[in-house]
Amino acid sequence: MLSDDIDGFFARASEIDPEAHLILEYQAEVVGSPRAAAAHLASEQSTAQWRRVGIEEDLRPRFGAKVLELEVLEALPEPSLSVPGVPSGPVSRCRIRIAHPYGNFGPRIPNLLSAVCGEGPFFTPGVPVLKLLDIHFPRSFLEHFQGPRFGVSGLRDLLGVHGRPLFLGVIKPNIGLPPEAFAGIAAEAWRGGLDIAKDDEMLADPEWSPLAERARLLGEACREARVETGEGKLYMANITDEVDRLLELHDAAVAGGAGALLVNALPVGLSAVRMLRKHTKLPLFAHFPMIAASSRVAEFGIHTRVWTRLQRLAGFDAVIMPGFGPRMMMDEDEVRACIQACLEPMGPIAPSLPVPGGSDSAATLESVYRKVGSVDFGFVPGRGVFGHPMGPRAGAASLRQAWEAIAAGVPLAEYAQGRRELAAALEAFGG
Amino acid sequence: MLSDDIDGFFARASEIDPEAHLILEYQAEVVGSPRAAAAHLASEQSTAQWRRVGIEEDLRPRFGAKVLELEVLEALPEPSLSVPGVPSGPVSRCRIRIAHPYGNFGPRIPNLLSAVCGEGPFFTPGVPVLKLLDIHFPRSFLEHFQGPRFGVSGLRDLLGVHGRPLFLGVIKPNIGLPPEAFAGIAAEAWRGGLDIAKDDEMLADPEWSPLAERARLLGEACREARVETGEGKLYMANITDEVDRLLELHDAAVAGGAGALLVNALPVGLSAVRMLRKHTKLPLFAHFPMIAASSRVAEFGIHTRVWTRLQRLAGFDAVIMPGFGPRMMMDEDEVRACIQACLEPMGPIAPSLPVPGGSDSAATLESVYRKVGSVDFGFVPGRGVFGHPMGPRAGAASLRQAWEAIAAGVPLAEYAQGRRELAAALEAFGG
Repeated sequence: MLSDDIDGFFARASEIDPEAHLILEYQAEVVGSPRAAAAHLASEQSTAQWRRVGIEEDLRPRFGAKVLELEVLEALPEPSLSVPGVPSGPVSRCRIRIAHPYGNFGPRIPNLLSAVCGEGPFFTPGVPVLKLLDIHFPRSFLEHFQGPRFGVSGLRDLLGVHGRPLFLGVIKPNIGLPPEAFAGIAAEAWRGGLDIAKDDEMLADPEWSPLAERARLLGEACREARVETGEGKLYMANITDEVDRLLELHDAAVAGGAGALLVNALPVGLSAVRMLRKHTKLPLFAHFPMIAASSRVAEFGIHTRVWTRLQRLAGFDAVIMPGFGPRMMMDEDEVRACIQACLEPMGPIAPSLPVPGGSDSAATLESVYRKVGSVDFGFVPGRGVFGHPMGPRAGAASLRQAWEAIAAGVPLAEYAQGRRELAAALEAFGG
Repeated sequence: MLSDDIDGFFARASEIDPEAHLILEYQAEVVGSPRAAAAHLASEQSTAQWRRVGIEEDLRPRFGAKVLELEVLEALPEPSLSVPGVPSGPVSRCRIRIAHPYGNFGPRIPNLLSAVCGEGPFFTPGVPVLKLLDIHFPRSFLEHFQGPRFGVSGLRDLLGVHGRPLFLGVIKPNIGLPPEAFAGIAAEAWRGGLDIAKDDEMLADPEWSPLAERARLLGEACREARVETGEGKLYMANITDEVDRLLELHDAAVAGGAGALLVNALPVGLSAVRMLRKHTKLPLFAHFPMIAASSRVAEFGIHTRVWTRLQRLAGFDAVIMPGFGPRMMMDEDEVRACIQACLEPMGPIAPSLPVPGGSDSAATLESVYRKVGSVDFGFVPGRGVFGHPMGPRAGAASLRQAWEAIAAGVPLAEYAQGRRELAAALEAFGG
């Protein structure tokens, strides 16, 4: 681009209509002129060639994405990733804030993804290393989306659980148990105090555990546990499958007695989730397969906060995400950013319940609670409930006991005296 | 895991049923024992807890993924990426070959993705850095998929083009032109010799260029160009949109006169593409937004070859991919691996036409042809046709002239004498 051409992709914030633009925050490692690279980043994601040959026209004023801010953070000796074909020249790390006119494609998730993290941004000349850090939507865009049906308060009302985290458990063994045995251990966990027993994200509708039968048996066990305990209880069925089976599988799960549904957001596709949201009357829980592959590298890819916002937008009532602690390989600030993306105001879109998970148990509950900083989260052990040395009923009870201790301000070890379930959990998982 | 537990996730190739297993090739940077890390990698993607508490059972023989080969390639001073929470210990780079019993989930793309590149692999203890390098499917798995309807030979028959690459062009300006003007420049390109004029991957169904109207105008222009030139011609409409609009938009595009369809594979979701494949009678072309975000880092994520195989499996007749040259930031061997993944035998699944692209023109055709090593590819300039200094008709003509020169073994510069279109292309794009 010539210098004049570059200017056409810059604007002041006061010059753009905030209701007509998404705001995108990128971190980029650029080779050569940061100003030229930023202009290319805006151009490649919008009108890359803005006039026909031989015709005086300029499509940029309406259709061009515009650089609002360009901040050079530091000079680098070389790009932090080895990327083929990178030209030689000075390298700088920059923050680039772009206003993207969403009228280029409309309020549609696949087209949004294609523009803001597609070929354009990731093949921008002079930008070998790029991360989409955040995205902000104007109300006019958000109003086209339903968002979560239940959200945090709706989930609480459904279960009748207030003032404490929701206790979920991933039924384990996750793969290989026939439905009857699977229902048996879920029933134990509900009796012990679990709110929601859920399928693993890898267990959906295989021949050896057909979803319809599993939902029927777990739905029945769940109803019995509700009657027995007088508490709200849900079975969360994983309906992750081919897109053209989603609604059918949904209906089978609901008919069987599932009270919530798990969908692997990226494998199924966020757009298919949006479709499902229009169809279902149950809460939708997101699981996170594939997200790490595009987000774990600090300097490159798509930030987990972006994926969290998009899952909320697509209509998930809860977002299961990699949580605190070394097991999940996430920086604590990044987990907090995802939790915040679930809960903070988002125009007309209700909050999603954050469910930060990863090798949790009664021994980690207090730490997770302190780090989240509120009771508005889901806590989702697997082995911490179903691998408890005294079994799943004791595993679930150990969570409730741990919360009683936290709520009462009593040290866990002290509260565990005379409470065998909690004592055994601390011994097995407290390492 | 204890040492005995680890053994349960290893097997010899002769001990597994090849028709019941996917073969997965990973490169991993492991901390601590490579053998323990490889066992965890197999465990986490299958039956992570393989027995109930208090019950003597072992779900691993049937449901456990098994490490077939573990090769330690080199010791590393530290993992090549900075990943939070990584324990201290010796670091090694390993190749790990795993047999995964696909009966755990069945012949379904979302569940496949959830298992082989989901939470399990990317959150395996001791494996902070992982890349899924390749995946091989047994015939019994492939037989559940339709794959491409046309494939390479079907596309050639449809266009009547044999013995040379197919010439595609991305109509530019890509974003912002109303349908009538858009059709005008496409018509010029067809008259100049283009086989397929296509929508940009970011242009779908916006208010300022409704797909139904665009398809009608471009379909009409395409029919006229067919009559005028006596050649096969296609308009490729981009129907990328929300999943629940895909079929409706497909039908509108077909009714208008589209002869091929473009779908942004990952933004829409591979499973939705599989659904579309069941519905359509037209060739489907894949575009690659979002793939770079999970594949560009050499040591981490999901290799482009895997994405290519999955696009072919989902039913794409052609796969547009980042091609040769510095513009697309791909190693040449990686481009070749993707081309091979399109064309090599894949049980009952027909080949997909590889379309390696990136700032191409008459000036790059010979180099791309030599690198592909065959005529079985699509060549897809944007500006090289629509930014040609004499206009799109000359841009398209320059491609055909360049191919005549290559086919005749005449140097391009020599052949350009007296051929203004080619001469102008070489001057404008020849660098």
